[in-house]
Amino acid sequence: MPPVVEIRNIAQFAGQEVVIQGWLYNLRSSGKIVFPLIRDGSGIIQGVVVKSAVSPQVFEHARGLTQESSLRAAGKVRADARAPGGFELDITGLEIVQYVPIERPYPITPKDHGIEFLMDHRHLWLRSSRQRAILGVRHEIIKACRDYFDDRGFTLVDTPIFTPAACEGTTTLFEVGYFEDKAYLTQSGQLYNEATAAAVGKTYCFGPTFRAEKSKTRRHLTEFWMIEPEVAFAHLDDAMALGEGLVAFVVERVLAKRRSELKVLERDVAKLEKVVPPFPRLSYDEAVKILQGKGSEIQWGGDFGGTDETLLSEGFEKPLLVHRYPSQVKAFYMAPDPARPEVALCVDMLAPQGYGEIIGGGERIADEKLLVERIEKEKLPPETLGWYVDLRRYGSVPHSGFGMGIERVVAWICGLEHVRETIPFPRMLYRLTP
Amino acid sequence: MPPVVEIRNIAQFAGQEVVIQGWLYNLRSSGKIVFPLIRDGSGIIQGVVVKSAVSPQVFEHARGLTQESSLRAAGKVRADARAPGGFELDITGLEIVQYVPIERPYPITPKDHGIEFLMDHRHLWLRSSRQRAILGVRHEIIKACRDYFDDRGFTLVDTPIFTPAACEGTTTLFEVGYFEDKAYLTQSGQLYNEATAAAVGKTYCFGPTFRAEKSKTRRHLTEFWMIEPEVAFAHLDDAMALGEGLVAFVVERVLAKRRSELKVLERDVAKLEKVVPPFPRLSYDEAVKILQGKGSEIQWGGDFGGTDETLLSEGFEKPLLVHRYPSQVKAFYMAPDPARPEVALCVDMLAPQGYGEIIGGGERIADEKLLVERIEKEKLPPETLGWYVDLRRYGSVPHSGFGMGIERVVAWICGLEHVRETIPFPRMLYRLTP
Repeated sequence: MPPVVEIRNIAQFAGQEVVIQGWLYNLRSSGKIVFPLIRDGSGIIQGVVVKSAVSPQVFEHARGLTQESSLRAAGKVRADARAPGGFELDITGLEIVQYVPIERPYPITPKDHGIEFLMDHRHLWLRSSRQRAILGVRHEIIKACRDYFDDRGFTLVDTPIFTPAACEGTTTLFEVGYFEDKAYLTQSGQLYNEATAAAVGKTYCFGPTFRAEKSKTRRHLTEFWMIEPEVAFAHLDDAMALGEGLVAFVVERVLAKRRSELKVLERDVAKLEKVVPPFPRLSYDEAVKILQGKGSEIQWGGDFGGTDETLLSEGFEKPLLVHRYPSQVKAFYMAPDPARPEVALCVDMLAPQGYGEIIGGGERIADEKLLVERIEKEKLPPETLGWYVDLRRYGSVPHSGFGMGIERVVAWICGLEHVRETIPFPRMLYRLTP
Repeated sequence: MPPVVEIRNIAQFAGQEVVIQGWLYNLRSSGKIVFPLIRDGSGIIQGVVVKSAVSPQVFEHARGLTQESSLRAAGKVRADARAPGGFELDITGLEIVQYVPIERPYPITPKDHGIEFLMDHRHLWLRSSRQRAILGVRHEIIKACRDYFDDRGFTLVDTPIFTPAACEGTTTLFEVGYFEDKAYLTQSGQLYNEATAAAVGKTYCFGPTFRAEKSKTRRHLTEFWMIEPEVAFAHLDDAMALGEGLVAFVVERVLAKRRSELKVLERDVAKLEKVVPPFPRLSYDEAVKILQGKGSEIQWGGDFGGTDETLLSEGFEKPLLVHRYPSQVKAFYMAPDPARPEVALCVDMLAPQGYGEIIGGGERIADEKLLVERIEKEKLPPETLGWYVDLRRYGSVPHSGFGMGIERVVAWICGLEHVRETIPFPRMLYRLTP
């Protein structure tokens, strides 16, 4: 039997007999020739079945193929400059593995389906070219993020999903029964990262995080993945440079390796090619002025909403670093700017084209006394934060880090309208299946 | 100012002035010379402070350094063959970043502490040489797993943590309030992987999984990480070869890159060097006979307990592949062996030296009718598995995969007594903090 090969490797087998295993993606026919478009998950290839060249059974099989029927096709690989992947398969043998009967056809057809129908059939919808392209870009983004930190001497230290108590208020936390006790699902690994940064110097965690937010917007999921680096002896400027480097590296990698996926997604790559350092940096003060100039009702001291973020990023072709927000709108652990204690040494990175915040972070409070004051002021449970205060008692150092939400980065790089397509099985306020 | 460098890169700066930022790990003193052992998370270096060569203030600072005080040390890098890392730092300047006062010293001292004390101080315990070595090996194992699949054309497709209903019984599931509804935390991404394997051909997921098991053994965590590949058109033998290749690759990578960590852990690397393919393969039938010969009370049809697994692996220097268990002890989706339907086309891989099962998997049922029968027989909720049955209706193919539990692999490769040290912040029946 000829070798079973993957379509992604087809060029290595030009002129040879091979077997392709996959599914029927589409079928064209012109009486005496049938063109089954076959996908195997690694790529797509057009098969050619000529009636006069094959047995009657093979021809009938080919002509009757239904969408998503599974099959094994044997034939010779032929270079063809007109073919999308550069090759076609002259089929000589065809085995149907499972035939999808015409009376119970594959539910997703080339016609338009409503989004709820597609989401209900997410387990099948993932087979479409567009969804597979997104999966491929997502894979590349995640790999690039890990490579970026691994190549720079960071140690991956995965932080726990079960956390004992609410650090930033309980309203957006998911509660879990934990034997006789209760636990909460993590919203961020940052506090733990601060402990491990003191152990390994440079650390990152990368896992799912959870928000029980009752928002039904195109930017929110209840379950999403976040990568969070934390660096000992690093200041705000270091965190900004690290985030800038990461985002530029990720975009460059996707452009280098996933051009064909971006083409399927009809992404304007010229816009992505502009994402090279340096990224513009803007203080919150300057950002407020720009927004007011554009008609926003934002006042100094308030946080930006999604509309403000979109308005702000409009004038920029690259991601925008906005730093030094008022401390009052940021988390309790953010270090105040020594020169202006009313603002925090923090930074948000806003993606271009209205994709909103993709990075949030900054420098953490290193001083024990100040941290304890903040915990008291925000009425946080001191008994569950004792270990966190310990980090300021035993070899405290300046340290900074950030979190980058993967789904928003995928949405931006792929140019998607809604984050629900950025993750294989999205979880939202009204969506827990399949 | 001289450049701030990481200890891991110190060899590049031999003979040069540098600054090291880190923590005091240990201090020796001989009156006129002080030897502070400094760690920065990337490595450890011994400093040398000679009273006659530095200012009185620098010498007093050095002599008074307490364990885990944070510091910046300036000095010249000197090659010294006797030094553990090959270099020492002749310190000329010393800045204490935060001094840990003698009256409130670092709680973990070189003396023996009880395990509960250490676990309560896990956020600090991670700074010890032994724990950092484990973190380093864990990082390398995870990276090797990902590289193995990425380099072979697999697409990472992360499966959801929130699942709508119990597929394998609810007794070991964690329940979460999900707005007006309830959800369960995933025990495995496999069912979802079967959907994505049909989309991308070869897939894997890698994330935290959860078991609400009331077991308090040295092998159990409530939250642990699992990597799960799934391959379309793959059979049991393919899954066995894939798992064998993965484990051999991971061990080889750790041996190549983490010798120094294995040395800290006093791991007998000769035992790991024997882990090269082919691994022995044993049918369940043969395994039962061997166990009975060794005095186990196991009868054909029963599942192996931890003791049986240890007994079985004793005679082997390599991981052991045990295949074709009775269907009755395996999950509903396992394909029966066509030649002997009472056994399943499944495989467990048992690590040597009594570390138990590290891989479990096999071939899944591809036939719709048989799968529906199994779902009915096991009284599983058919309404929540409709999408899973769909995979057999629309282009069903033979497919196989497995799950590998990362913490058990870390325990085995590091030679640890208990899985609690294999994960940064372990979660167990009685342990939810820090």
